[in-house]
Amino acid sequence: MIEFEQPSRRELLTAIGKAGGAVALYQAMTALGHAAPTQFAGPPKLSGARPGASVVVLGSGLAGMVAALELQKAGYKVQILEFQDRPGGRNYTVRGGDVIKETDGTVQKVQFAPGNYLNPGPWRIPFHHQALLHYCSELGVALEPFVQINLNGYIHSDKAYGGVPQRIAEVGVDYKGHVAELLAKAVNKGALDDTVTAEDKARLLEAMRGWGLLDKNMAYTTSLQTSAQRGYDRPPGGGVNGAPTPSQIASLSDTLDPRVWGTVSGFFSRTMQQTMFQPVGGVDMIGKAFARKLAGLIRLNARVTKIAQDDAGVTVDYVDTVTGKASVAKASYCVCTIPLPLLSQIEVQVSAPKQAAIKSLPYHSSCKVGLEMKRRFWEQDEAIFGGHSFTTQPIGEVGYPSTGFFKPGPAVLLGAYAGGANAYTFAAMTPAQRIETALKQGSVFHKQYRQEFSNGVAVAWTKLPWITSCASTWSEDLRREHYQNLVSVDGRIVLAGEHCSYIGAWMEASLLSAIDAITRLHQRALAA
Amino acid sequence: MIEFEQPSRRELLTAIGKAGGAVALYQAMTALGHAAPTQFAGPPKLSGARPGASVVVLGSGLAGMVAALELQKAGYKVQILEFQDRPGGRNYTVRGGDVIKETDGTVQKVQFAPGNYLNPGPWRIPFHHQALLHYCSELGVALEPFVQINLNGYIHSDKAYGGVPQRIAEVGVDYKGHVAELLAKAVNKGALDDTVTAEDKARLLEAMRGWGLLDKNMAYTTSLQTSAQRGYDRPPGGGVNGAPTPSQIASLSDTLDPRVWGTVSGFFSRTMQQTMFQPVGGVDMIGKAFARKLAGLIRLNARVTKIAQDDAGVTVDYVDTVTGKASVAKASYCVCTIPLPLLSQIEVQVSAPKQAAIKSLPYHSSCKVGLEMKRRFWEQDEAIFGGHSFTTQPIGEVGYPSTGFFKPGPAVLLGAYAGGANAYTFAAMTPAQRIETALKQGSVFHKQYRQEFSNGVAVAWTKLPWITSCASTWSEDLRREHYQNLVSVDGRIVLAGEHCSYIGAWMEASLLSAIDAITRLHQRALAA
Repeated sequence: MIEFEQPSRRELLTAIGKAGGAVALYQAMTALGHAAPTQFAGPPKLSGARPGASVVVLGSGLAGMVAALELQKAGYKVQILEFQDRPGGRNYTVRGGDVIKETDGTVQKVQFAPGNYLNPGPWRIPFHHQALLHYCSELGVALEPFVQINLNGYIHSDKAYGGVPQRIAEVGVDYKGHVAELLAKAVNKGALDDTVTAEDKARLLEAMRGWGLLDKNMAYTTSLQTSAQRGYDRPPGGGVNGAPTPSQIASLSDTLDPRVWGTVSGFFSRTMQQTMFQPVGGVDMIGKAFARKLAGLIRLNARVTKIAQDDAGVTVDYVDTVTGKASVAKASYCVCTIPLPLLSQIEVQVSAPKQAAIKSLPYHSSCKVGLEMKRRFWEQDEAIFGGHSFTTQPIGEVGYPSTGFFKPGPAVLLGAYAGGANAYTFAAMTPAQRIETALKQGSVFHKQYRQEFSNGVAVAWTKLPWITSCASTWSEDLRREHYQNLVSVDGRIVLAGEHCSYIGAWMEASLLSAIDAITRLHQRALAA
Repeated sequence: MIEFEQPSRRELLTAIGKAGGAVALYQAMTALGHAAPTQFAGPPKLSGARPGASVVVLGSGLAGMVAALELQKAGYKVQILEFQDRPGGRNYTVRGGDVIKETDGTVQKVQFAPGNYLNPGPWRIPFHHQALLHYCSELGVALEPFVQINLNGYIHSDKAYGGVPQRIAEVGVDYKGHVAELLAKAVNKGALDDTVTAEDKARLLEAMRGWGLLDKNMAYTTSLQTSAQRGYDRPPGGGVNGAPTPSQIASLSDTLDPRVWGTVSGFFSRTMQQTMFQPVGGVDMIGKAFARKLAGLIRLNARVTKIAQDDAGVTVDYVDTVTGKASVAKASYCVCTIPLPLLSQIEVQVSAPKQAAIKSLPYHSSCKVGLEMKRRFWEQDEAIFGGHSFTTQPIGEVGYPSTGFFKPGPAVLLGAYAGGANAYTFAAMTPAQRIETALKQGSVFHKQYRQEFSNGVAVAWTKLPWITSCASTWSEDLRREHYQNLVSVDGRIVLAGEHCSYIGAWMEASLLSAIDAITRLHQRALAA
């Protein structure tokens, strides 16, 4: 990477542009360090396994399965032990007929109509998650756009607009209008003369006028101009009564609610930026596609009880959760993707620092509620097609399906996506109480809720016996102390999974972690 | 509509919320005049045509066809005269094998691969264009999401960033960061103490910090925090080298370019807000679906030369453009949807004010260039899935297809969407020159352009003999003088089309205009 001093970058690019034209400029963009989209550089090239070497993979989530797939390609003999009665791990979709068992014995039977589903865990794919997109393509998983930004969704805050939900477009336009008016006022007072050059001052005022839709007095006001973005009271039409009437803007004070600027800013979050995708038919199409490639290699219902290693290889003790029979799996190496809340309860023969890392990383929780409604009233009555409505209530949001637009018949809303402390509150409720809470709180957006509700399902991750949590939560301090210890190859054992990444709870994290882990394990095997 | 004084609205809603709960609040939202999405209130209910009455519809664009469809349902005997050899008008898609003839005799033969297409005119449907969505549903036209917002597209300005294109996310995040830093600075200086209350001042600072991603010194800086939105130099990954490195923010000065704030603000434009849709397979699926419903009623190749009326009915003279044979169509009433640039050259027996209106309304132009590329390099190499890249160059933008994501093989880019004066410059070129210009200017974004280019097509609306323009351009002055005269029922004749609306060049305009026109014509017929 060429290094330049910060102030010279623009001038340099200008010089390149003048000298070499558009193509030279384009090439310079990369050289100058424009944001790279991904750390993925194609699938690992591991050809030439150590002769006769074998690998036991623990866990058949995406990390375990991509590890198995690529190690097998390289020539390793691979077996996978999976605790559940299905492969996929958190790459998980529930459909009508599925049964969800919780740690306390509670059982939910999913009642969704055929074709409907809920993704309790990961559900969307950012455009820059190139490893995941690569494997979806290689494995033939069909993708469709996931509508992340829908400005016709609602924002609800208990502290703004009298608690009345507003369309995201309305509050977003009002917010930037008020910000623009205030900044223009300050600039015109000379308050920033020591910061902004005279030339930029004029350009800044022009930007505020244009971006904020300010009027000739540099004020943000109720007008046809502002309604052309926030929406009209009566929109433009055709014929004799086609003239529009403006909608009433809201006050500065309302737009300063964190739910407002948090949403507007959140659309820019790198992981949430449009364009996003989702697998057609449910996110578990990815896990199922991996599993098809690994047919015969995955032993289901296998609860690992001990992981040991010596000079000869790795020994994994496990119990068949159906028959109760104890068994032993042996291999030259082990890739362990068991989530840490479970792994920390298993005897693992690794170094003290890695043991400390395994025991130190906290996991957060999450609860999603799927509500099957008799019809798509959000589309039919309110013109909401995909996207979300956000609220300060514990449900966090209502998510609208990005598939099957305009179809008649029942469809599934994401009725709650609770995180933080709210996730634990939901987990403490019965499934019926979680659904009732989602119905009650979601009614703030949709008066049709009670009438159109058909059935629901509520997945609280801390209550799922096969994981008892949602995903890892690194802090800067924990990273410093434990991260490298967690991901290092320890003798014949390496860990992989979203907990072994800087990405966190995304499918991409599992893949990139596993690819890195097996690449290093392979090097270790060849060097041994 | 209940009327309230502006300041009381919030208090009132709070009171309603306290008294009645969520459902009462929801119902109040509508009553208090929240933005209505559309003037469409369902298809017109015209039952009970005047016995024996007939209507001749001139033009089989969407306005003419929806008029014919609904008048026929009501019991009128309907016939349609169409100038072209196909129905649909500006609802138009070109595919491989199609021939485009221009006014000067120039002919283009479209070379696109099977399945590929360009929509030279309308191409996307806002979620609030409810009339169009209604008829798509009624006529069985399949729709798919049109990706309008893709923050991974580029922005290019000849006056910023040394002319080097930037990802929209990068400039959008930098822009709000700098604006937030400046406003926070001004607020902390007390520059807005006379405008903002002490309570709102604290909330405003918190909003600037959160929305703008400011650091603890309230500065917008290069950091992992800002990179979490604008993108990283090295993004987070998995395993030992998973740590991210931040990307370099750009200067305030660069972000003040109008191309930057214009784009960021433009995503809020009511007609451009997500979620948008497009017909699967090309926009003309709409026109074709209407035409199927009107089988046998549309006479093609009919050039209207005169429109007359008397107490007995309407007489339309027309010439068959293939045989040259002159004919006359007679009916009780006439719905004329002929675009004004052509209608103004035809003898029409209407009042002087309507004649003046017909002759006074200017039309603007537009030019779209479709470039078929051998592969989807924008997806494969640059992770751009749908959306647009915007430029200050005459091409205006490059548009990426919102369909067929991830597919191998050739695909069609929108290589230019020129408006204003640029549209006329493009129209003055030969098609080959237009395509060459699109290739040259688009190369600023994509170095692959020349290598991947296969073939192109360039549609300049002023050169199309059947319309010689793109769409109407009303000013406020023109509205005041001519609009009601243009749309009024004149004896037995009424005009319809996007020119008879406050919406302008959108398909919705044609539909709403026509629905209003035939509703009034029906009333006139019954009253006669």
